[in-house]
Amino acid sequence: MSNARITLVNPNSLTGVTEAIERAVAPFKGLPLTFRCLTSTGGPAGIQTQAEADACIAPMARLFLQEAAATDAFIVACFSDPGLHGLRDLVRVPVLGIGECSVLTAMSMATRIGVIAIARASIPRHLRYFRSMGVADRICAELSLDMKVSELADAEKALARMVAVGKTLRDEQGAEVLVMGCAGMADLRGRLEDACQLPVVEPTQAAVGMAVGRVFG
Amino acid sequence: MSNARITLVNPNSLTGVTEAIERAVAPFKGLPLTFRCLTSTGGPAGIQTQAEADACIAPMARLFLQEAAATDAFIVACFSDPGLHGLRDLVRVPVLGIGECSVLTAMSMATRIGVIAIARASIPRHLRYFRSMGVADRICAELSLDMKVSELADAEKALARMVAVGKTLRDEQGAEVLVMGCAGMADLRGRLEDACQLPVVEPTQAAVGMAVGRVFG
Amino acid sequence: MSNARITLVNPNSLTGVTEAIERAVAPFKGLPLTFRCLTSTGGPAGIQTQAEADACIAPMARLFLQEAAATDAFIVACFSDPGLHGLRDLVRVPVLGIGECSVLTAMSMATRIGVIAIARASIPRHLRYFRSMGVADRICAELSLDMKVSELADAEKALARMVAVGKTLRDEQGAEVLVMGCAGMADLRGRLEDACQLPVVEPTQAAVGMAVGRVFG
Amino acid sequence: MSNARITLVNPNSLTGVTEAIERAVAPFKGLPLTFRCLTSTGGPAGIQTQAEADACIAPMARLFLQEAAATDAFIVACFSDPGLHGLRDLVRVPVLGIGECSVLTAMSMATRIGVIAIARASIPRHLRYFRSMGVADRICAELSLDMKVSELADAEKALARMVAVGKTLRDEQGAEVLVMGCAGMADLRGRLEDACQLPVVEPTQAAVGMAVGRVFG
Amino acid sequence: MSNARITLVNPNSLTGVTEAIERAVAPFKGLPLTFRCLTSTGGPAGIQTQAEADACIAPMARLFLQEAAATDAFIVACFSDPGLHGLRDLVRVPVLGIGECSVLTAMSMATRIGVIAIARASIPRHLRYFRSMGVADRICAELSLDMKVSELADAEKALARMVAVGKTLRDEQGAEVLVMGCAGMADLRGRLEDACQLPVVEPTQAAVGMAVGRVFG
Amino acid sequence: MSNARITLVNPNSLTGVTEAIERAVAPFKGLPLTFRCLTSTGGPAGIQTQAEADACIAPMARLFLQEAAATDAFIVACFSDPGLHGLRDLVRVPVLGIGECSVLTAMSMATRIGVIAIARASIPRHLRYFRSMGVADRICAELSLDMKVSELADAEKALARMVAVGKTLRDEQGAEVLVMGCAGMADLRGRLEDACQLPVVEPTQAAVGMAVGRVFG
Repeated sequence: MSNARITLVNPNSLTGVTEAIERAVAPFKGLPLTFRCLTSTGGPAGIQTQAEADACIAPMARLFLQEAAATDAFIVACFSDPGLHGLRDLVRVPVLGIGECSVLTAMSMATRIGVIAIARASIPRHLRYFRSMGVADRICAELSLDMKVSELADAEKALARMVAVGKTLRDEQGAEVLVMGCAGMADLRGRLEDACQLPVVEPTQAAVGMAVGRVFG
Repeated sequence: MSNARITLVNPNSLTGVTEAIERAVAPFKGLPLTFRCLTSTGGPAGIQTQAEADACIAPMARLFLQEAAATDAFIVACFSDPGLHGLRDLVRVPVLGIGECSVLTAMSMATRIGVIAIARASIPRHLRYFRSMGVADRICAELSLDMKVSELADAEKALARMVAVGKTLRDEQGAEVLVMGCAGMADLRGRLEDACQLPVVEPTQAAVGMAVGRVFG
Repeated sequence: MSNARITLVNPNSLTGVTEAIERAVAPFKGLPLTFRCLTSTGGPAGIQTQAEADACIAPMARLFLQEAAATDAFIVACFSDPGLHGLRDLVRVPVLGIGECSVLTAMSMATRIGVIAIARASIPRHLRYFRSMGVADRICAELSLDMKVSELADAEKALARMVAVGKTLRDEQGAEVLVMGCAGMADLRGRLEDACQLPVVEPTQAAVGMAVGRVFG
Repeated sequence: MSNARITLVNPNSLTGVTEAIERAVAPFKGLPLTFRCLTSTGGPAGIQTQAEADACIAPMARLFLQEAAATDAFIVACFSDPGLHGLRDLVRVPVLGIGECSVLTAMSMATRIGVIAIARASIPRHLRYFRSMGVADRICAELSLDMKVSELADAEKALARMVAVGKTLRDEQGAEVLVMGCAGMADLRGRLEDACQLPVVEPTQAAVGMAVGRVFG
Repeated sequence: MSNARITLVNPNSLTGVTEAIERAVAPFKGLPLTFRCLTSTGGPAGIQTQAEADACIAPMARLFLQEAAATDAFIVACFSDPGLHGLRDLVRVPVLGIGECSVLTAMSMATRIGVIAIARASIPRHLRYFRSMGVADRICAELSLDMKVSELADAEKALARMVAVGKTLRDEQGAEVLVMGCAGMADLRGRLEDACQLPVVEPTQAAVGMAVGRVFG
Repeated sequence: MSNARITLVNPNSLTGVTEAIERAVAPFKGLPLTFRCLTSTGGPAGIQTQAEADACIAPMARLFLQEAAATDAFIVACFSDPGLHGLRDLVRVPVLGIGECSVLTAMSMATRIGVIAIARASIPRHLRYFRSMGVADRICAELSLDMKVSELADAEKALARMVAVGKTLRDEQGAEVLVMGCAGMADLRGRLEDACQLPVVEPTQAAVGMAVGRVFG
């Protein structure tokens, strides 16, 4: 479906994250598709706990209903895919989650997948999600950066820590592919791949890739 | 902890369901505990889809914060346990879900568990949940009543259908214990047990039992 | 990567299957990509047994090495993905399998996946594969058409049987999405969806979709 | 069922363990229930190997038959739950195992469960049991104290070692809740929780909690 | 190890079963090994419930200790392998169970294994065991003969029922190999294979086969 | 079946490996069986990658067809069991794989199995295989020697490294039995067992043991 309209929704209220999501989509701009990246007004300012992930759902549900007529495929652009299955109940077009798509994409690349989380507190939530997807056996380990938010703002520090975690996943846990367990870090993907000498899945890009398949296939 | 206060929350707005939850708690009234059954104002009028389950979370979160000071243990009284893990982030006291507790209780009774759902649409949602709990292998099958809401109001018809489904779970799927996959049907438990000649777990009662353990143990 | 070259390889020697694969790709022809569909000369005339699937590998390995310089992503266009992991050892570009991609795509659409196999003999081979992928829990059932090859040639008969199997998967096994467990049947996808009122994943299209994601993302 | 009689059976012949089990029950003494803690005469003097666990069964079977008329719910008070399923065949009242109940209770508290075993030799036996329960995926790790029996007698040394193991489970394995993999150590529960800053499940208390649910619910 | 002594123990007290076990061993009589088939005096007269399986353990433990000096490998000749792991603690030589060996042997023959149980009551016990072995996913189904003991004595009736169950496992559950879930029925193996046109694993023979490997390898 | 003919096939072209396989069979030479060890001409010179494993299949298929009339059971003597299921389609006699048989044999010995791989690159291939067998949960860990081929030629160095890896599997991963993840190393088995104080399964011997069971049972 040429000129299909793909709407990416950032469930949290940080417009800087929405901008980073825009940059993640850039490589797909040559395709005959229309991409829009929206911020879900009313979402929490960042998602670390399950409570924060859940708090995203109600505002997103309103946004989805409002944008459905102008959308051929939605993407929930948070690694925890808050509300994914429920949002599918609300609209008729495909709804993809960047967490789900990133793992599925990694599964098509290598046997053992390592996940890099930002916060340690997210790991059990991700684990419950991987289990509900029935793919937990493919995740060899998930490790977190364990950085303060203030430190994360420093992209070089964040990258350095991400590289260290990626190498640990590779050398101690056998990861053959890395998944970035967070939206908004696509800028670092190439350097992470180079430093770890492993393919890296950026979740927003994985979801856009699968959305392209859905609107054309 | 004697005189502990256990607050059961009906996530949907149907006060008739809250009343049925009250009746489910009756057998525990002799214990030195205080039980309160509250309706989560603002929840949907019934929960069949994932979207409806998710729509329960925001109103419940407000209610939990409001009632936390007067509560020693919360129970989410919907079989899908909407928002369970997130609500645990919000309050310091134990939060139990009737879906989780019913399956855990059934696991202490027999090897193969059959679940009776009201609506066919709930089964994949339950399945994702059983998987996220890591217990899907213990559920030999889940079957639904597939009745219209208007038919459900007729308790005799509902019981007859429930018995038929329970016998199918027992005879064709090997279920040794049945779990009622819904709140508010405790009145039918005894007759279902007698008709199927199998133990039946009523989820609200299972959760109250586990809550008692938590507040004393 | 605009103008990326995607090479689809039919592992068996039936050029009619290669032509059907060409037709499966048609909906993607508007994308700025070059698609080529090749027949692996030297492969068996059809793949039902594991021995036939294995007999595809050596000729395909030769073909991959020969075409690698002209290819940005390969697709193995047989549902059993013969030699998939080994072919990844031989070339530097992405290699996708239509079996793997079809299941991964279906996993992004619904909870319980039903697979329609052509031959009963393929089911244990597929099962071993789903297990090696770590996704067997997502497949609610796989059923086969059990038709003679001569009958399959009659597209109407094949469709009628496929619809019957699809409805059984939906009504008795709870399938919410169907996967066609075979290449070369894209022509029937739309009518199968209409008749079963379920989304249907056509494996070649699923793989092309994921390949697009890989070459751009 | 007010005034229900709960009989806890220590499968080994060490009366000191039976006394420790009595102390574990103390917090439940305010409930309108009668608790009795019995030693299974004829059991082995401690349970480390599978052979010792199995040697408990025959004496316990005799004791259960003898006490059935005076009992509304039995608890097998050894973490390996020796003979649990067979004892359920012998009596009509509920039979709970402290191992099973402790894991089920922990499952209602957090996602990743760490288990502290006394002896390294017990770990494969526990693993077989967790697998037979279908819950092995919820146990992030089990580690043992590896202390000599003579050292265990020194409660302070035992606690110090338990705290060290608990912290390893928390920091290196991601445990969010700890299960004490042994009866008779309830006295140390509070200090272990404080030192590790994690909730700790004491198995006898978990079983009493679930037994209360069974006799009332 | 030529002239190794293999001791098969029938855990129940029925000498007719021991004689049938002797006949199962017959095909191996040409090997340079000594086989003895012993009845465990003090075991129950047949094993249907878990309680009966457990009641076998204490008498077998005594017999194993008594026969250890005259034995190079033991075989527990009951499909439920009562006490298997504990008996391994008691003696230094290999101890094999016919249940375990039959499933492992079937796993080397085909992908989907169907099990024929005598009694419906044994199925959950077997299921717990398959799970503890980590092989439950390989068992496509277990079905029981559901015959009265008096009917079982009629070998022709038993065979006819076994064939019917075997064909159901093959045609409705996809079994490619059948396992006889009971000792003492080797006489019927050949006819069951012929009637079902599937390979049949007789558990005593599977265990003797694996014991040969252990004493020589 | 006395005087049964067992044909072991080394899938790679290294005759030194075939000779080592001959030595592995030596302990079984007292049995009334005929053993032949053949080199599959046309196979690759060693198997590390999946591509090399797959390249073994076509030459082996030719060899099997050629030797079928002179063979009562085949053994594929490479730990990755290349082509195992397909080869079973080609001949009527049993076909066993040393990888499959080694894991199954280890499963009859202890709960947690540690695997020693030669090359790190083989581990994901083995993992996919263990998963397709449905036994991945029994493998507590697989670690590799990570030696250069030139170093492996020095048997003392290889043994020393193997012992180190075996002790790590035992002490850090809980392995109770070790599996040598490679053909042709039977000479080192006894010394590895002595050094690690654990039973060691040599895969060729495991397969011969199970083949004996198949031809007689």
